[in-house]
Amino acid sequence: MIQQKLRININRLMKTIEESAGIGRLSGGGICRLALTDEDKKMRDTFIQWLKNSGLKVRVDDFGNIYGRREGQNPEASPVLIGSHLDTQPEGGRFDGILGVLAGLEVICTLNEFNVQTEKPIEIVNFTNEEGSRFEPPILGAGGVSGHFDKEFIYSRKDRDGKTFLEELKRIGYLGEESNRVQNSHSYIELHIEQGPVLEHKGIDIGAVTGIQGMDWLEVKITGQSDHAGPTPMSMRKDALYVAAKLIQIIRDTITSQNSEATATVGRMAIKPNSINCVPGEVIFSVDIRHSDNAVKELLTQLIIEKLSILAAAEQVMIETKKIWETSASHFSAELIDIISETAEELGYSNQRMISGAGHDSKYMNEITPTAMIFVPSADGKSHCQEEFTSTAAIDKGANVLLHTICKLAGASN
Amino acid sequence: MIQQKLRININRLMKTIEESAGIGRLSGGGICRLALTDEDKKMRDTFIQWLKNSGLKVRVDDFGNIYGRREGQNPEASPVLIGSHLDTQPEGGRFDGILGVLAGLEVICTLNEFNVQTEKPIEIVNFTNEEGSRFEPPILGAGGVSGHFDKEFIYSRKDRDGKTFLEELKRIGYLGEESNRVQNSHSYIELHIEQGPVLEHKGIDIGAVTGIQGMDWLEVKITGQSDHAGPTPMSMRKDALYVAAKLIQIIRDTITSQNSEATATVGRMAIKPNSINCVPGEVIFSVDIRHSDNAVKELLTQLIIEKLSILAAAEQVMIETKKIWETSASHFSAELIDIISETAEELGYSNQRMISGAGHDSKYMNEITPTAMIFVPSADGKSHCQEEFTSTAAIDKGANVLLHTICKLAGASN
Repeated sequence: MIQQKLRININRLMKTIEESAGIGRLSGGGICRLALTDEDKKMRDTFIQWLKNSGLKVRVDDFGNIYGRREGQNPEASPVLIGSHLDTQPEGGRFDGILGVLAGLEVICTLNEFNVQTEKPIEIVNFTNEEGSRFEPPILGAGGVSGHFDKEFIYSRKDRDGKTFLEELKRIGYLGEESNRVQNSHSYIELHIEQGPVLEHKGIDIGAVTGIQGMDWLEVKITGQSDHAGPTPMSMRKDALYVAAKLIQIIRDTITSQNSEATATVGRMAIKPNSINCVPGEVIFSVDIRHSDNAVKELLTQLIIEKLSILAAAEQVMIETKKIWETSASHFSAELIDIISETAEELGYSNQRMISGAGHDSKYMNEITPTAMIFVPSADGKSHCQEEFTSTAAIDKGANVLLHTICKLAGASN
Repeated sequence: MIQQKLRININRLMKTIEESAGIGRLSGGGICRLALTDEDKKMRDTFIQWLKNSGLKVRVDDFGNIYGRREGQNPEASPVLIGSHLDTQPEGGRFDGILGVLAGLEVICTLNEFNVQTEKPIEIVNFTNEEGSRFEPPILGAGGVSGHFDKEFIYSRKDRDGKTFLEELKRIGYLGEESNRVQNSHSYIELHIEQGPVLEHKGIDIGAVTGIQGMDWLEVKITGQSDHAGPTPMSMRKDALYVAAKLIQIIRDTITSQNSEATATVGRMAIKPNSINCVPGEVIFSVDIRHSDNAVKELLTQLIIEKLSILAAAEQVMIETKKIWETSASHFSAELIDIISETAEELGYSNQRMISGAGHDSKYMNEITPTAMIFVPSADGKSHCQEEFTSTAAIDKGANVLLHTICKLAGASN
C-alpha cells in the first residue's frame, strides 16, 4: 500500500519543465534540441547542476548517457532506474522524453523532502540520441548500454553534415567512461506521453504499458504505363496511381478486418511523371505495419504482400514489394506492469493496459532488465510537433504513479 | 472521285522528315526544338528554303507563323490551308506536328510533279509555339491569327529565364508583318499522329477527327490530421491519403459508368508530411476531365464534385475542390470530316471517325475557318517522348489522304 500523504510537488516539476523548454526554444512554443548539439550540451549542463543540487552523485558513460545516483540503505543492492531522454525532434514538443527524466528528478526531490529512505539505490538516466533525428537509427544511448548496438557502430553514426557521433560527443565534453555504464540494475521505469489519442479519447488518466509493437516497413513499386491523359481511353490505361489507390484500400481492409490492434500506414508516396495531363506510369509507396505479436505482424505482412500480387495480375501492372526495415515486438515485465496498475488504482486514477506503437529507450532497456512504462494522455494525440501538449493535472498523476512505483520497487521506508 | 494515279512520294517525304529530325536531335532519337530557340530558327530557315525550292511564295506574320503559298487559277479565291507546327516538347518525337507541315510540303511537291493545277490557292503554315513547353499556354501562333489570344498577351509570355515571346521572336529574326496573317481562308486541314493507342489497337489506318475534347482541370485538397503512425489506432485516424485513394476510385467509377468516351485522370499528387511513419494529414491532387460535349463535361465535373463532398462528410475530413483551368470542346466541319472519310474509302484505307483528346493548332483555326484533322496511328499510343513512332506505311496513307482531300477542296484539275 502506498503512503497516502507522499506526493510530488507539481509546481516544482512544472517549473523545471518550463526552464528546460527555454533551451532550444522555437517561436511556436516547441523545442529544437538535437542530440550532441550546443543546445543539448546546455541542457545537459543544467540537468547535471539540478542532479547535484538534489544531492545525487553524477557520472557519464562512454555514450554520453548521464546518471544521477541516490544511494540506498543496502549498498550492495542493484539500483532502480528511472529514465528517458532530453533530446528532441527538429520541431519537437516540451514533453516527449523530457517528462520522464525531469519527473525522475522530481521523485528524488520528493523523497528528499519527505525524508524517505529506500533499501535499493535509485538512478535517474538521460539517454543520448533517443529521437534519431540527428544520428540514425534512434535510441542509440540505450541501445549501447543494452548491447543492442556495438560501440563502433554508434561512434561512427554520421549526421547530415558528415560529423560523427564520437566527434560531437567529444566536442560537447560528454565522452565518459565505459565503466560508468549502468550494470546489474534491478528494474527500469519510464514515464512518457502517449503520443497517440487513446487515453484522451477514453478519458483515462494512466496507461500501464505492456510492450512496444513490432514493425515491418515495406516498399511497394507499381509499374504501369505513362500515357497522354487526353487520347488514351480509360479501358486502355495502365494507371499506376489508380492501382495504388486500390492497394491502399486493400491494405486498410486487410488490417481492420483481421485485428483491432494492428496498424498499417501508407505514409510516403512518389508518383512519376506527376504531371497533371499524364497517366501515372510509376508509383512507389511505403507501408508501415505494426503489431505487438511478432507472429501476427509477420502474417499480416505476408497477407498484404499476397493480396497485392493477386491485384497485380488483375490490373496488368507489375507490383514489386520488398521489406526495407523490421523491428521485433517488445514485451515488458508482467510484474512491473501489475505494480504500475495497482499503484494507479491505489491513487484513485483511472487506468488501462496498452501497447506502445512508438519506440522508446525502454525498448532496449527491456533486453537487459525488467522494464515497464507509464503513459499519460497527449492532447489530440499529437507529438513530434510544437503543439504537443499534456495538461498539468495529467502530469501530476503520472509523476505520482512514478513516485509510488519507485517507492515499491526500491523498498521505501521513513 | 480521286485520280487514282496521283500519289505522294513517300521516300521524298521520309527524307525530309529525317533531315528535320537532325535539328535539335537527342541521343535517344528524339528532338528538343523548343519554340523560338536557335534550333527552331535553324529549322525555320531550312523549311523556308524547302518552300522556296518548291516554288512557293513565303511570308511571315507578326507571330512568326510561316506561310508558303501556291497560287490557284482563280486569283480571287480564298486559300486552302495545310498546317501544323515544327516545334517540339523538351524530349519530343520526330512526328508530332512536324508530320502535318512536311506532308503539306510533300503535297505541293506532288502537285508540281504531276503538273496539277487547282482553282484555289494552297498555303502551308507552320504555327509558332504549339507545344507550349517554352511559352505557356500552348497553341499561341494559331491562337493569335484566330483572335483567340490578343497580341499583347502573346508578346508578353515569358519562358523560365524571363525572356519574352517578342524578344525571342525578334532575336531569331522571325518578327513579320501583321498584314501577312492568313485571312479569309477557305478551309484548314491538319494531318497529325493520334498520340493515343486507338487506331493501332483496332488496326485502322486513318482517323477522321470530328473535334477536340473540352477539358476541365480540378484541384482537390483533402485536409485530415497528421499523426504518428505507431500510436494512432486505425479507427481514430483522419488519413488524407486513404481518403484520396477512395476518391480516385470514385472518380474512375463515375467516369467509366457514365460514358465510354469521357476520360478522367489523376496525374499529380502531393502528400504531407510524406514520411514513412506519419499518417498523411494533407493530400492535394489534380483531376483532368475530358469530353467532346461541353454539357456532358460540365455534368461529369459536377457529379465528381458532388460525390467528393458526400465522401468528405462520411470520412470526417475536409475536401476542397476548385476548377483551375477549362477549355471548351471543338467541333470540326461536318463537310470536311465527310470528305476525309470518303477520300480514305476511295483510297482503300480502313478509317473511323474519332475525337481528339489532345489540343492542336486546329482547335483555334476551327474558330475562323472550316477545319478538320486526319490522324494516323501512334505506335503503342506514345507521344511527347523520344520513343514516339509512326510507321512509314502509315505515314504514306495519311499523306495520300491529305493530298486527295486538298485536291478536292482546292478544285484540282490537270
